[in-house]
Amino acid sequence: MEGEKERAVVLLSGGVDSSTTVAVALDEGYEVYALTVDYGQRHRREIRSAREVSERMRVREHRVLRLELSGLVHSALTGDGDVPRGRSEAEIGYGIPETYVPARNTVLLSLGLAWAESIGASAVFIGANSVDYSGYPDCRPEFISAFEEAAALGTRCGQLGGRIRIRAPLAGMRKSEIIALGARLGVEFDATTSCYDPSGENGLACGECDSCLIRKRGFEDSGLEDPTRYAGGGRACSED
Amino acid sequence: MEGEKERAVVLLSGGVDSSTTVAVALDEGYEVYALTVDYGQRHRREIRSAREVSERMRVREHRVLRLELSGLVHSALTGDGDVPRGRSEAEIGYGIPETYVPARNTVLLSLGLAWAESIGASAVFIGANSVDYSGYPDCRPEFISAFEEAAALGTRCGQLGGRIRIRAPLAGMRKSEIIALGARLGVEFDATTSCYDPSGENGLACGECDSCLIRKRGFEDSGLEDPTRYAGGGRACSED
Repeated sequence: MEGEKERAVVLLSGGVDSSTTVAVALDEGYEVYALTVDYGQRHRREIRSAREVSERMRVREHRVLRLELSGLVHSALTGDGDVPRGRSEAEIGYGIPETYVPARNTVLLSLGLAWAESIGASAVFIGANSVDYSGYPDCRPEFISAFEEAAALGTRCGQLGGRIRIRAPLAGMRKSEIIALGARLGVEFDATTSCYDPSGENGLACGECDSCLIRKRGFEDSGLEDPTRYAGGGRACSED
Repeated sequence: MEGEKERAVVLLSGGVDSSTTVAVALDEGYEVYALTVDYGQRHRREIRSAREVSERMRVREHRVLRLELSGLVHSALTGDGDVPRGRSEAEIGYGIPETYVPARNTVLLSLGLAWAESIGASAVFIGANSVDYSGYPDCRPEFISAFEEAAALGTRCGQLGGRIRIRAPLAGMRKSEIIALGARLGVEFDATTSCYDPSGENGLACGECDSCLIRKRGFEDSGLEDPTRYAGGGRACSED
Protein backbone atom coordinates (compact mmCIF):
# COMPACT_ATOMS: atom_id res chain seq x y z
CA MET A 1 0.00 0.00 0.00
CA GLU A 2 1.41 3.35 -1.10
CA GLY A 3 0.09 5.10 2.00
CA GLU A 4 1.75 2.73 4.42
CA LYS A 5 5.28 2.96 3.11
CA GLU A 6 7.94 4.32 5.38
CA ARG A 7 9.27 7.64 4.27
CA ALA A 8 12.88 8.58 3.69
CA VAL A 9 14.51 11.87 2.85
CA VAL A 10 17.30 11.41 0.31
CA LEU A 11 19.87 14.14 -0.24
CA LEU A 12 20.08 14.48 -4.00
CA SER A 13 22.76 16.52 -5.72
CA GLY A 14 22.06 15.09 -9.15
CA GLY A 15 25.31 13.15 -9.38
CA VAL A 16 26.00 9.42 -9.70
CA ASP A 17 26.19 8.73 -5.96
CA SER A 18 23.07 10.54 -4.80
CA SER A 19 21.03 9.27 -7.76
CA THR A 20 22.08 5.72 -6.94
CA THR A 21 21.17 6.39 -3.32
CA VAL A 22 17.65 7.36 -4.42
CA ALA A 23 17.48 4.03 -6.24
CA VAL A 24 18.65 2.14 -3.14
CA ALA A 25 16.03 3.82 -0.95
CA LEU A 26 13.30 3.06 -3.50
CA ASP A 27 14.54 -0.52 -3.78
CA GLU A 28 14.30 -0.88 -0.01
CA GLY A 29 10.66 0.13 -0.27
CA TYR A 30 10.81 3.68 1.01
CA GLU A 31 8.64 6.49 -0.24
CA VAL A 32 11.34 8.94 -1.26
CA TYR A 33 11.43 12.67 -0.54
CA ALA A 34 14.40 14.10 -2.38
CA LEU A 35 16.11 17.21 -1.09
CA THR A 36 18.47 19.28 -3.18
CA VAL A 37 20.27 22.08 -1.42
CA ASP A 38 21.26 24.89 -3.74
CA TYR A 39 24.14 26.24 -1.71
CA GLY A 40 25.48 28.47 -4.43
CA GLN A 41 27.69 25.78 -5.90
CA ARG A 42 29.44 26.57 -9.12
CA HIS A 43 28.07 23.52 -10.82
CA ARG A 44 24.49 24.74 -10.99
CA ARG A 45 23.82 22.18 -13.67
CA GLU A 46 23.55 19.77 -10.74
CA ILE A 47 20.25 21.36 -9.75
CA ARG A 48 18.82 20.65 -13.19
CA SER A 49 20.11 17.10 -13.05
CA ALA A 50 18.51 16.60 -9.64
CA ARG A 51 15.16 17.71 -11.08
CA GLU A 52 15.59 15.39 -14.04
CA VAL A 53 16.55 12.41 -11.89
CA SER A 54 13.58 13.04 -9.57
CA GLU A 55 11.20 13.15 -12.50
CA ARG A 56 12.51 9.97 -14.07
CA MET A 57 12.53 7.98 -10.83
CA ARG A 58 9.48 7.43 -8.68
CA VAL A 59 10.32 10.16 -6.21
CA ARG A 60 7.28 11.22 -4.17
CA GLU A 61 8.41 14.81 -3.77
CA HIS A 62 11.46 16.85 -4.69
CA ARG A 63 12.39 20.09 -2.97
CA VAL A 64 15.14 22.50 -3.86
CA LEU A 65 16.21 24.56 -0.88
CA ARG A 66 18.19 27.72 -1.44
CA LEU A 67 20.96 28.39 1.07
CA GLU A 68 23.49 31.16 0.53
CA LEU A 69 26.34 29.14 1.96
CA SER A 70 28.76 30.74 -0.47
CA GLY A 71 28.55 33.95 1.55
CA LEU A 72 29.71 32.06 4.62
CA VAL A 73 32.30 29.53 3.50
CA HIS A 74 35.27 29.45 1.19
CA SER A 75 35.69 26.58 -1.23
CA ALA A 76 36.60 26.01 -4.82
CA LEU A 77 33.07 24.61 -5.15
CA THR A 78 31.34 27.80 -4.08
CA GLY A 79 33.35 30.04 -6.36
CA ASP A 80 36.58 30.71 -4.48
CA GLY A 81 39.74 29.52 -6.14
CA ASP A 82 40.22 27.11 -8.98
CA VAL A 83 38.87 23.63 -9.27
CA PRO A 84 41.92 21.35 -9.69
CA ARG A 85 42.20 19.62 -13.06
CA GLY A 86 44.04 16.67 -14.50
CA ARG A 87 45.21 15.26 -11.18
CA SER A 88 46.40 11.68 -10.85
CA GLU A 89 44.47 9.13 -8.83
CA ALA A 90 47.09 9.33 -6.08
CA GLU A 91 46.74 13.10 -5.92
CA ILE A 92 42.95 12.89 -5.79
CA GLY A 93 43.10 10.41 -2.94
CA TYR A 94 45.55 12.39 -0.86
CA GLY A 95 44.70 15.12 1.60
CA ILE A 96 41.68 17.35 1.85
CA PRO A 97 40.95 18.87 -1.57
CA GLU A 98 40.20 22.53 -2.29
CA THR A 99 36.76 21.38 -3.31
CA TYR A 100 36.00 20.49 0.32
CA VAL A 101 33.10 22.69 1.47
CA PRO A 102 33.44 23.32 5.22
CA ALA A 103 31.02 21.15 7.20
CA ARG A 104 28.97 20.55 4.07
CA ASN A 105 27.56 17.16 4.93
CA THR A 106 26.79 18.30 8.46
CA VAL A 107 24.74 21.13 6.98
CA LEU A 108 23.07 18.89 4.38
CA LEU A 109 22.22 16.19 6.90
CA SER A 110 20.81 18.69 9.38
CA LEU A 111 18.49 20.08 6.70
CA GLY A 112 17.51 16.55 5.67
CA LEU A 113 16.88 15.78 9.33
CA ALA A 114 14.65 18.84 9.74
CA TRP A 115 12.53 17.78 6.78
CA ALA A 116 12.51 14.14 7.88
CA GLU A 117 11.25 15.03 11.31
CA SER A 118 8.64 17.32 9.84
CA ILE A 119 7.16 14.68 7.54
CA GLY A 120 7.62 11.74 9.90
CA ALA A 121 10.32 10.06 7.81
CA SER A 122 12.31 7.32 9.51
CA ALA A 123 15.56 7.79 7.61
CA VAL A 124 17.78 10.31 5.89
CA PHE A 125 19.92 8.87 3.09
CA ILE A 126 23.14 10.43 1.88
CA GLY A 127 25.35 9.24 -0.97
CA ALA A 128 28.56 9.79 0.96
CA ASN A 129 31.36 7.34 0.32
CA SER A 130 34.91 7.45 1.41
CA VAL A 131 36.78 5.12 -0.89
CA ASP A 132 37.39 7.39 -3.86
CA TYR A 133 37.01 10.56 -1.78
CA SER A 134 39.15 9.66 1.18
CA GLY A 135 40.04 13.31 1.66
CA TYR A 136 36.57 14.45 2.70
CA PRO A 137 36.24 14.06 6.46
CA ASP A 138 32.45 14.27 6.35
CA CYS A 139 32.14 11.26 4.04
CA ARG A 140 33.53 8.82 6.60
CA PRO A 141 31.30 6.26 8.35
CA GLU A 142 32.43 7.47 11.80
CA PHE A 143 31.01 10.87 11.01
CA ILE A 144 27.72 9.43 9.78
CA SER A 145 27.31 7.42 13.02
CA ALA A 146 28.17 10.39 15.22
CA PHE A 147 25.68 12.56 13.37
CA GLU A 148 22.96 9.95 13.83
CA GLU A 149 23.67 9.96 17.55
CA ALA A 150 23.42 13.75 17.73
CA ALA A 151 20.23 13.64 15.67
CA ALA A 152 18.66 11.17 18.07
CA LEU A 153 19.34 13.52 20.97
CA GLY A 154 18.38 16.69 19.16
CA THR A 155 14.95 15.83 17.79
CA ARG A 156 11.47 15.49 19.18
CA CYS A 157 11.29 12.07 17.59
CA GLY A 158 14.48 11.01 19.38
CA GLN A 159 13.23 12.36 22.69
CA LEU A 160 10.09 10.31 22.31
CA GLY A 161 12.14 7.15 21.87
CA GLY A 162 12.17 7.01 18.07
CA ARG A 163 15.22 7.30 15.91
CA ILE A 164 15.75 8.78 12.48
CA ARG A 165 18.41 6.61 10.85
CA ILE A 166 21.19 8.32 8.96
CA ARG A 167 21.95 5.98 6.08
CA ALA A 168 24.99 6.05 3.82
CA PRO A 169 24.51 2.83 1.85
CA LEU A 170 27.39 3.55 -0.53
CA ALA A 171 29.90 4.20 2.26
CA GLY A 172 32.25 1.34 1.48
CA MET A 173 31.89 1.26 -2.28
CA ARG A 174 34.18 2.36 -5.09
CA LYS A 175 32.75 4.46 -7.89
CA SER A 176 32.69 1.50 -10.28
CA GLU A 177 30.67 -0.54 -7.77
CA ILE A 178 28.26 2.36 -7.25
CA ILE A 179 27.76 2.66 -11.01
CA ALA A 180 27.15 -1.08 -11.33
CA LEU A 181 24.63 -0.96 -8.47
CA GLY A 182 22.89 2.09 -9.90
CA ALA A 183 22.68 0.50 -13.33
CA ARG A 184 21.17 -2.65 -11.84
CA LEU A 185 18.57 -0.55 -10.01
CA GLY A 186 17.63 1.38 -13.13
CA VAL A 187 19.40 4.71 -12.64
CA GLU A 188 19.56 6.55 -15.96
CA PHE A 189 23.02 8.02 -15.75
CA ASP A 190 22.54 10.33 -18.69
CA ALA A 191 20.43 12.46 -16.35
CA THR A 192 23.21 12.78 -13.79
CA THR A 193 25.99 15.35 -13.54
CA SER A 194 29.31 14.87 -11.82
CA CYS A 195 31.46 17.73 -13.07
CA TYR A 196 32.69 20.30 -10.55
CA ASP A 197 32.99 22.95 -13.20
CA PRO A 198 30.91 22.42 -16.34
CA SER A 199 32.20 24.69 -19.01
CA GLY A 200 31.84 25.35 -22.70
CA GLU A 201 28.62 25.35 -24.61
CA ASN A 202 25.60 23.58 -23.13
CA GLY A 203 27.42 23.26 -19.82
CA LEU A 204 29.32 20.13 -20.87
CA ALA A 205 31.34 18.27 -18.24
CA CYS A 206 34.97 19.41 -18.30
CA GLY A 207 36.38 15.87 -18.19
CA GLU A 208 39.39 16.96 -16.13
CA CYS A 209 38.30 17.83 -12.59
CA ASP A 210 38.57 15.21 -9.82
CA SER A 211 34.90 14.40 -10.08
CA CYS A 212 34.96 13.89 -13.87
CA LEU A 213 38.11 11.79 -13.60
CA ILE A 214 36.64 9.57 -10.90
CA ARG A 215 33.42 9.22 -12.89
CA LYS A 216 35.24 8.31 -16.11
CA ARG A 217 37.39 5.78 -14.31
CA GLY A 218 34.33 4.37 -12.53
CA PHE A 219 32.54 3.73 -15.79
CA GLU A 220 35.67 2.20 -17.32
CA ASP A 221 36.17 -0.11 -14.34
CA SER A 222 32.52 -1.12 -14.26
CA GLY A 223 32.57 -2.00 -17.94
CA LEU A 224 29.51 0.17 -18.49
CA GLU A 225 29.18 2.98 -20.95
CA ASP A 226 29.48 6.56 -19.68
CA PRO A 227 26.70 8.50 -21.39
CA THR A 228 28.33 11.79 -20.43
CA ARG A 229 29.34 14.19 -23.17
CA TYR A 230 32.62 15.79 -22.15
CA ALA A 231 33.84 19.16 -23.41
CA GLY A 232 36.28 18.85 -26.28
CA GLY A 233 35.81 15.22 -27.05
CA GLY A 234 32.57 13.32 -27.42
CA ARG A 235 31.75 10.60 -24.97
CA ALA A 236 34.17 8.82 -22.71
CA CYS A 237 33.43 5.42 -24.25
CA SER A 238 31.94 4.46 -27.58
CA GLU A 239 28.77 6.10 -28.84
CA ASP A 240 25.74 3.92 -28.50
CA MET B 1 46.54 42.12 20.54
CA GLU B 2 43.35 42.24 18.47
CA GLY B 3 44.85 40.13 15.71
CA GLU B 4 45.85 37.29 18.01
CA LYS B 5 42.51 36.72 19.64
CA GLU B 6 40.84 33.39 19.14
CA ARG B 7 37.71 33.59 17.07
CA ALA B 8 34.29 32.31 17.98
CA VAL B 9 31.07 32.13 16.01
CA VAL B 10 28.08 33.00 18.18
CA LEU B 11 24.57 32.13 17.05
CA LEU B 12 22.59 35.31 17.63
CA SER B 13 18.82 35.42 17.42
CA GLY B 14 18.54 38.81 19.08
CA GLY B 15 16.95 37.49 22.26
CA VAL B 16 18.10 37.59 25.87
CA ASP B 17 19.94 34.25 25.76
CA SER B 18 21.91 34.68 22.57
CA SER B 19 22.78 38.30 23.39
CA THR B 20 24.08 37.21 26.78
CA THR B 21 26.02 34.46 25.02
CA VAL B 22 27.72 37.09 22.86
CA ALA B 23 28.68 38.89 26.07
CA VAL B 24 30.08 35.69 27.58
CA ALA B 25 32.20 34.98 24.49
CA LEU B 26 33.52 38.56 24.49
CA ASP B 27 34.19 38.33 28.21
CA GLU B 28 36.22 35.16 27.62
CA GLY B 29 38.36 37.12 25.20
CA TYR B 30 37.07 35.81 21.87
CA GLU B 31 36.78 37.87 18.75
CA VAL B 32 33.09 37.36 18.03
CA TYR B 33 31.52 36.54 14.66
CA ALA B 34 27.76 36.67 15.13
CA LEU B 35 25.53 34.60 12.89
CA THR B 36 21.81 35.21 12.58
CA VAL B 37 19.85 32.70 10.56
CA ASP B 38 16.73 34.14 9.06
CA TYR B 39 14.80 30.90 8.71
CA GLY B 40 11.49 32.54 7.95
CA GLN B 41 10.48 32.83 11.55
CA ARG B 42 7.36 34.77 12.32
CA HIS B 43 9.14 37.03 14.72
CA ARG B 44 11.18 38.92 12.15
CA ARG B 45 11.73 41.67 14.64
CA GLU B 46 14.42 39.33 16.03
CA ILE B 47 16.57 40.01 12.97
CA ARG B 48 16.48 43.74 13.66
CA SER B 49 17.31 43.10 17.29
CA ALA B 50 20.25 40.92 16.30
CA ARG B 51 21.60 43.77 14.16
CA GLU B 52 21.10 46.23 17.00
CA VAL B 53 22.78 43.98 19.56
CA SER B 54 25.74 43.38 17.22
CA GLU B 55 26.19 47.08 16.68
CA ARG B 56 26.08 47.94 20.36
CA MET B 57 28.46 45.16 21.40
CA ARG B 58 31.99 44.78 20.10
CA VAL B 59 31.09 42.13 17.57
CA ARG B 60 33.74 41.78 14.86
CA GLU B 61 31.32 40.78 12.14
CA HIS B 62 27.62 40.04 11.91
CA ARG B 63 26.09 37.96 9.14
CA VAL B 64 22.44 37.32 8.44
CA LEU B 65 21.95 34.12 6.47
CA ARG B 66 18.65 33.54 4.74
CA LEU B 67 17.35 29.96 4.83
CA GLU B 68 13.85 29.12 3.67
CA LEU B 69 13.33 26.54 6.38
CA SER B 70 9.65 27.43 6.56
CA GLY B 71 9.13 25.65 3.25
CA LEU B 72 10.54 22.47 4.75
CA VAL B 73 9.32 22.26 8.32
CA HIS B 74 6.12 22.85 10.20
CA SER B 75 6.12 24.83 13.38
CA ALA B 76 4.13 27.55 15.08
CA LEU B 77 7.33 29.62 14.81
CA THR B 78 7.53 29.42 11.04
CA GLY B 79 3.93 30.35 10.45
CA ASP B 80 2.00 27.12 10.88
CA GLY B 81 -0.55 27.07 13.68
CA ASP B 82 -0.96 29.42 16.59
CA VAL B 83 1.65 30.45 19.09
CA PRO B 84 0.25 29.40 22.52
CA ARG B 85 -0.58 32.25 24.87
CA GLY B 86 -1.15 32.74 28.57
CA ARG B 87 0.12 29.32 29.61
CA SER B 88 1.12 28.55 33.18
CA GLU B 89 4.72 27.82 34.12
CA ALA B 90 3.85 24.15 34.51
CA GLU B 91 2.33 24.06 31.03
CA ILE B 92 5.35 25.80 29.51
CA GLY B 93 7.70 23.32 31.14
CA TYR B 94 5.78 20.23 30.06
CA GLY B 95 6.18 18.39 26.77
CA ILE B 96 7.49 19.58 23.44
CA PRO B 97 5.80 22.86 22.52
CA GLU B 98 4.24 23.73 19.15
CA THR B 99 6.95 26.33 18.85
CA TYR B 100 9.56 23.57 18.51
CA VAL B 101 11.16 23.90 15.08
CA PRO B 102 12.27 20.44 13.88
CA ALA B 103 16.01 19.97 14.28
CA ARG B 104 16.47 23.72 14.55
CA ASN B 105 19.56 23.79 16.72
CA THR B 106 21.15 21.02 14.63
CA VAL B 107 20.66 23.22 11.57
CA LEU B 108 21.86 26.38 13.33
CA LEU B 109 24.94 24.68 14.80
CA SER B 110 25.87 23.13 11.46
CA LEU B 111 25.76 26.55 9.79
CA GLY B 112 27.76 28.03 12.66
CA LEU B 113 30.23 25.18 12.26
CA ALA B 114 30.60 25.82 8.53
CA TRP B 115 31.41 29.47 9.15
CA ALA B 116 33.68 28.64 12.08
CA GLU B 117 35.71 26.22 10.01
CA SER B 118 35.91 28.70 7.17
CA ILE B 119 37.31 31.53 9.31
CA GLY B 120 39.42 29.34 11.59
CA ALA B 121 37.30 29.90 14.67
CA SER B 122 37.89 27.55 17.58
CA ALA B 123 34.38 27.61 19.02
CA VAL B 124 30.71 27.93 18.16
CA PHE B 125 28.57 29.38 20.94
CA ILE B 126 24.84 28.82 21.28
CA GLY B 127 22.51 30.28 23.89
CA ALA B 128 20.66 27.01 24.40
CA ASN B 129 19.48 26.30 27.92
CA SER B 130 17.23 23.61 29.15
CA VAL B 131 15.95 24.78 32.50
CA ASP B 132 13.07 27.00 31.41
CA TYR B 133 12.75 25.27 28.06
CA SER B 134 12.86 21.68 29.16
CA GLY B 135 10.61 20.70 26.28
CA TYR B 136 13.11 21.42 23.51
CA PRO B 137 15.22 18.31 22.91
CA ASP B 138 17.91 20.25 21.09
CA CYS B 139 18.61 22.51 24.05
CA ARG B 140 19.89 19.69 26.27
CA PRO B 141 23.58 19.35 27.14
CA GLU B 142 23.66 15.74 25.86
CA PHE B 143 22.72 16.98 22.42
CA ILE B 144 25.36 19.73 22.49
CA SER B 145 28.07 17.18 23.39
CA ALA B 146 26.95 14.73 20.71
CA PHE B 147 26.95 17.47 18.10
CA GLU B 148 30.48 18.50 19.08
CA GLU B 149 31.58 14.90 18.59
CA ALA B 150 30.00 14.73 15.13
CA ALA B 151 31.55 18.10 14.27
CA ALA B 152 35.00 16.86 15.23
CA LEU B 153 34.61 13.91 12.86
CA GLY B 154 33.00 15.85 10.04
CA THR B 155 35.38 18.75 9.58
CA ARG B 156 38.81 19.24 8.06
CA CYS B 157 39.89 20.84 11.30
CA GLY B 158 38.79 17.76 13.25
CA GLN B 159 40.53 15.44 10.81
CA LEU B 160 43.74 17.38 11.30
CA GLY B 161 43.54 16.86 15.05
CA GLY B 162 41.92 20.14 16.01
CA ARG B 163 38.52 20.57 17.53
CA ILE B 164 35.88 23.22 17.21
CA ARG B 165 34.22 23.42 20.60
CA ILE B 166 30.46 23.66 20.74
CA ARG B 167 29.77 25.86 23.74
CA ALA B 168 26.45 26.38 25.50
CA PRO B 169 27.52 28.44 28.51
CA LEU B 170 23.95 29.10 29.65
CA ALA B 171 22.96 25.44 29.61
CA GLY B 172 22.26 25.05 33.30
CA MET B 173 20.92 28.52 34.02
CA ARG B 174 17.41 29.81 34.68
CA LYS B 175 16.25 32.90 32.79
CA SER B 176 16.68 35.10 35.87
CA GLU B 177 20.31 33.98 36.20
CA ILE B 178 20.93 34.59 32.51
CA ILE B 179 19.51 38.10 32.81
CA ALA B 180 21.65 38.81 35.88
CA LEU B 181 24.75 37.54 34.07
CA GLY B 182 23.94 39.53 30.92
CA ALA B 183 23.38 42.69 32.94
CA ARG B 184 26.70 42.23 34.71
CA LEU B 185 28.45 41.81 31.35
CA GLY B 186 26.85 44.91 29.90
CA VAL B 187 24.09 43.52 27.69
CA GLU B 188 21.62 46.27 26.85
CA PHE B 189 18.39 44.34 27.05
CA ASP B 190 16.31 47.08 25.46
CA ALA B 191 17.89 45.99 22.16
CA THR B 192 16.77 42.38 22.59
CA THR B 193 13.52 40.74 21.53
CA SER B 194 12.01 37.63 23.05
CA CYS B 195 8.43 37.58 21.77
CA TYR B 196 7.37 34.69 19.55
CA ASP B 197 4.66 36.78 17.92
CA PRO B 198 5.15 40.54 18.13
CA SER B 199 1.87 42.19 17.30
CA GLY B 200 0.24 45.58 17.35
CA GLU B 201 1.84 48.83 16.28
CA ASN B 202 5.64 49.01 16.19
CA GLY B 203 5.85 45.25 16.60
CA LEU B 204 5.47 45.35 20.37
CA ALA B 205 6.01 42.14 22.34
CA CYS B 206 2.69 40.39 22.97
CA GLY B 207 3.40 39.73 26.64
CA GLU B 208 1.49 36.43 26.60
CA CYS B 209 3.46 33.83 24.60
CA ASP B 210 5.74 31.37 26.43
CA SER B 211 8.78 33.42 25.56
CA CYS B 212 7.34 36.72 26.84
CA LEU B 213 6.10 35.02 30.01
CA ILE B 214 9.49 33.44 30.72
CA ARG B 215 11.21 36.76 30.02
CA LYS B 216 8.87 38.72 32.29
CA ARG B 217 9.28 36.20 35.06
CA GLY B 218 13.04 36.18 34.56
CA PHE B 219 13.29 39.92 35.03
CA GLU B 220 11.01 39.78 38.07
CA ASP B 221 13.07 37.02 39.68
CA SER B 222 16.35 38.75 38.92
CA GLY B 223 15.13 41.97 40.49
CA LEU B 224 16.13 43.88 37.36
CA GLU B 225 13.94 46.10 35.28
CA ASP B 226 12.51 44.73 32.04
CA PRO B 227 12.91 47.49 29.46
CA THR B 228 10.48 45.73 27.12
CA ARG B 229 7.34 47.57 26.06
CA TYR B 230 4.56 45.01 25.88
CA ALA B 231 1.43 45.40 23.76
CA GLY B 232 -1.51 46.75 25.71
CA GLY B 233 0.31 47.86 28.81
CA GLY B 234 3.55 49.81 29.07
CA ARG B 235 6.59 48.17 30.57
CA ALA B 236 6.62 45.13 32.76
CA CYS B 237 8.21 47.01 35.65
CA SER B 238 8.38 50.70 36.46
CA GLU B 239 9.46 53.25 33.87
CA ASP B 240 13.00 54.44 34.31
